[in-house]
Parts: sequence; structure tokens; C-alpha cells
Amino acid sequence: MSEVITVHEVGLRDGLQNQPRVVPTEGKLRLLDALLDAGLQSIEAASFVSPKAVPQMADAAEIFANLPQDRGVGYEALVPNEKGYERAVDAGVTTVALVLAATDTFNRRNINMSLDEAIRVNEAVIRRAKADGIRARSYLSVVAACPYEGVVPPETVFDLAARMFDAGADELALGDSTGAGSPPQMAHLFETLAHRYGPERLAGHFHDTRAMGLTLTWVAIECGIRKFDSSIGGLGGCPFAPGATGNLATEDLVFMATEAGFETGIDVGGLRRAVAVAEELTGQTLGGRITPFLDSREKRRAAN
Amino acid sequence: MSEVITVHEVGLRDGLQNQPRVVPTEGKLRLLDALLDAGLQSIEAASFVSPKAVPQMADAAEIFANLPQDRGVGYEALVPNEKGYERAVDAGVTTVALVLAATDTFNRRNINMSLDEAIRVNEAVIRRAKADGIRARSYLSVVAACPYEGVVPPETVFDLAARMFDAGADELALGDSTGAGSPPQMAHLFETLAHRYGPERLAGHFHDTRAMGLTLTWVAIECGIRKFDSSIGGLGGCPFAPGATGNLATEDLVFMATEAGFETGIDVGGLRRAVAVAEELTGQTLGGRITPFLDSREKRRAAN
Repeated sequence: MSEVITVHEVGLRDGLQNQPRVVPTEGKLRLLDALLDAGLQSIEAASFVSPKAVPQMADAAEIFANLPQDRGVGYEALVPNEKGYERAVDAGVTTVALVLAATDTFNRRNINMSLDEAIRVNEAVIRRAKADGIRARSYLSVVAACPYEGVVPPETVFDLAARMFDAGADELALGDSTGAGSPPQMAHLFETLAHRYGPERLAGHFHDTRAMGLTLTWVAIECGIRKFDSSIGGLGGCPFAPGATGNLATEDLVFMATEAGFETGIDVGGLRRAVAVAEELTGQTLGGRITPFLDSREKRRAAN
Repeated sequence: MSEVITVHEVGLRDGLQNQPRVVPTEGKLRLLDALLDAGLQSIEAASFVSPKAVPQMADAAEIFANLPQDRGVGYEALVPNEKGYERAVDAGVTTVALVLAATDTFNRRNINMSLDEAIRVNEAVIRRAKADGIRARSYLSVVAACPYEGVVPPETVFDLAARMFDAGADELALGDSTGAGSPPQMAHLFETLAHRYGPERLAGHFHDTRAMGLTLTWVAIECGIRKFDSSIGGLGGCPFAPGATGNLATEDLVFMATEAGFETGIDVGGLRRAVAVAEELTGQTLGGRITPFLDSREKRRAAN
């Protein structure tokens, strides 16, 4: 029996939220179908942020009303605060994700709150979720380096992780939102937290800005981590982080995990069809770093 | 004191040997200068193969006659057989590299010898080098998978490594020439060989065909390996391996090693100037996976 790696697809939220183009609900559901057909079983489907500030996510409730419930898939919604939480619960969401950036400046520039205020908002929503029987994922972002404050001290990450777990978080995802992490740095973070809380309560969220997304994933795998966020075709990035490019592509993650002997339940051919849908919806050229190899393999097979 | 990683630059040989365009001697020496200016101290400078079969390397003796000897750099030449070895020694070469592909079919298709014949040629040249006081590097290629025979059993690699060390090889480089290796597979090879022979006698040579070049490098670093081959701008590939793309780019390797806290003595800015020279000489667009990030960082710095 192979070990399983869970791929948590964030393209519909993290990917589409940052698009200049607002993708219509019907398009999002079509992309979702392609992702489910490829075998994805864990999906961040939408974000209950202010529809005025983020029109790309204005249809979050409609998305949740239309998610296929017969395919055993776990859906999650991002909520920025109690108001978003209430909207999410009203829409039938059963797992919420909260984002907490690790530095004061990043929080101020991003959501106009101090780090302390942001911590309190995250704690309050997590506590409320636990009281309501809702699953809560805490997502710590810019854990490696902040574009304004530089390298983030590991103790800061450990302190924030402790606060979120104390508040009742079921899972903690470490986000290297600017792709600034180095292998020993991420190993230290994941090793320490896995030792304290168990690797099964942790996840990795990497960006491929500096071409180390897969290497950092491997480092986390070696620390026992078995759940990773990724975005179909590398869709999306972080609009608040100067120089940040796309998320780790789902097809790169699935390819490496499969080659390394892990089960993901996901079919790379199906992911390529989902990339095509995402390209059509966004008008962008997408695709992970494995794409040229897959293209050339397909051509060779067709020629034989 | 940081630990040191030695970057062994193979662009002048592995890179230029596979070019459709024959780069003139003057151009190669200009590229060499740019590489030395960037800080590279270990260079595979040419190959003493048949000038008829490989006109790109016909000037190997002239290259060696013109190498700067006052900069403390270690130069190495690839030799395919005793005839090439003799030409190399006549040209003043003091370190030779021998290549042995790990499978019978690959040797037959590549050099028209059986695996047994190829082993004997490699052993004979290595023994002669040792008798002559010449340093010998054994390079095992296609150690992860052969395009004709599929996955290579680790025992095959271990047997070949033993033969080459027994013959007197000073160093053994494991070449994943088609970029087909997976992280656990390469970890098993490097762990086992490092245990048997010491990590300081081993090196890694990775291709980035499937976007795992840096990950496999990291896996080898964790096994104690501190010497890696790479090619400026990812120049070159393997003409005999269907679907193989470029070598791991020197700038990607240096960037990751530096970020991970290792000393390389190499300046990424200098490597970018060397990439520009290589592009001019080959008429190709080159550059590692880190290039878009470096470009955007340069623009941001210029804007500030």
C-alpha cells in the first residue's frame, strides 16, 4: 500500500480571486467539474470576502449552492472575518479557512489591521467555528519572508501556530506566499511544528516564484507532511506581494508525488484538460513546469 | 563557516557538444572567461572525441593550450577511449572524465559497444590514468532510467560504481541523463554509495527534463553530496536520449545552494553575463528557471 498525499486545489479561490477578469459562475463550475473529473477530492471553492472589494468572488454563495455533493469531495471556503464567516455558514460551508499573515506590515498593507488585531479576528472566527461544529483551517502566510519586513523569525511562526491551535484550528497550513523559502528554513519550520502538533495537522502551501516549489514540497514530505495546496496550471499568485508569481501548479505536484511512489488519486491527463478549461476562462497561458515534458511525451506516443 | 558546494560547469563540453552550431575556439574561450569571472573554479572544458564524429569538439587541444592557468581553476576533459585519452594527455590534461552508460542498449545505440565492452574500455583508461598520475572521474550515465530499457535497477548502478572505483576512479558522478529520476530513487543511490565510498568521492549530474533537477540536487545534498554538475543557462542536453532536455542550469543550482546557506564562490550576476555570452554564441535563448525572478528583481531594483 502506497502512502497517500492529499492535494488541496486552490485554483478556484486563490487562482481566480487574483484574476483581472471576473470568471462567471458557470465557468467556475465548469472548471470545478474538470478538476473533479481529474480526481481532486479537496477543493478551496470560494472566498466570502467583500463582493465590492473582490468582485471575482461575489458569487461565493451561488458556487456553494451548486457544488456536487455526491462525489465525496471536501470543500472549503476562505473567510476573512466574522461577517464572511456568517455568510459562509449561511451558504452551507462546513470547513472554513482563515488567513493570518506572519508580519505586522503585511497585515497592515493587506487588510489594514495590525498583526495583533488580525490574530484576534482569526482566533474569534476559529473559536466560533469550533462552537458551531465547523471545521477550521488556519493558514499562516508569508512564513518564510515578508516583502516589507524580510526574513520571518521561526519563533514568530511557532507563536502564531500555537495561538491558532489553541483557538481550536483543526489544521494549519504554512504558506510561503512569496516563494521566498529556502529548503533548510522550511525544514526547520515543518520539523518543529510536526513534532509539536503531528504532521497530520499540517499542510504546505508553496509558490514557485524562485523555482523551488517542488523542492520545498519534498522537504515538507520528508518532515511527514502529506497535504499540499496547489493551483491548476499555476493559476494565481499574491497581488499584495511584490514579485510573487504563481502558486505551485497542481500538475507539477501530482507528477512528482506519483513519481515518488505516493497515491494521489489524481490523473495528470485529467489535469491537462482542467488546465485547458482554466486557460479558456482566464484568457491566460497556464501550465506547470512539467508541461513541456508532458507535451513532448504526448507527441512521442502519438508518433509511435 | 558555511559549508562549500562545488559547482562543476559542463556547458563548454556537455552544452556545446550538442549544439547544431559549431562555436569557434575564440567564442569558447570568451565564454570560459565569463564563467571564470563569475567565480567558477571547476570546469569541464572539452571532449577528446573523434573530430569527424563531433566537429563541435575538434578544437579540444587548442582549448586546453589556451586555458588560463593562473586562476586556481580545475579543468577536466572528457575522453571516450584510449585514443582520446592519449590526445588529452598530449594536450596537457591532468583530469580526465570517462562516461559509462548503465545499460547495454544505451551503450550499443550511443557508442556501438556492449555494456561489457564499455566497462572494459572505461577500466582500461582509468587504470592507465592512475599509472600516469592523471586524475580520473567516472561518470555513470542514465542511472535512473534508460530510454530503451526503462528503470535501471539500483544494483546495476552499485555494481558499475564498484568496478569503476576498483579500477582507480578518484570520483564518481551519477548522471540522471534523461531527468527521469525520482527523489526516493536518487536518495537510495546516493545514500548507499556515500555510505560505501564517502560522499566526498561522489557528485551529482542532473537534468531538468521533468522539472525535478533542483529537488534531486537537494536530495543528494541531504546525502552529504557537495559537488554538482550544471550547465550555464541550461545549455545542452543529450542527443541520444529521446525527450531529454537541458542540463540543470548553473544559475538555478547556485541560487538554491546560496539560499540554503552554502558557499559556492559564484556570483549570480556574473552567471547572467555568461548566459548572455552563451546566447550570443549559440543563437539560442537560454536561462534557468530562476531567470524570470532575477529579471523582475533587477527591474524592481532599477525602479527604486
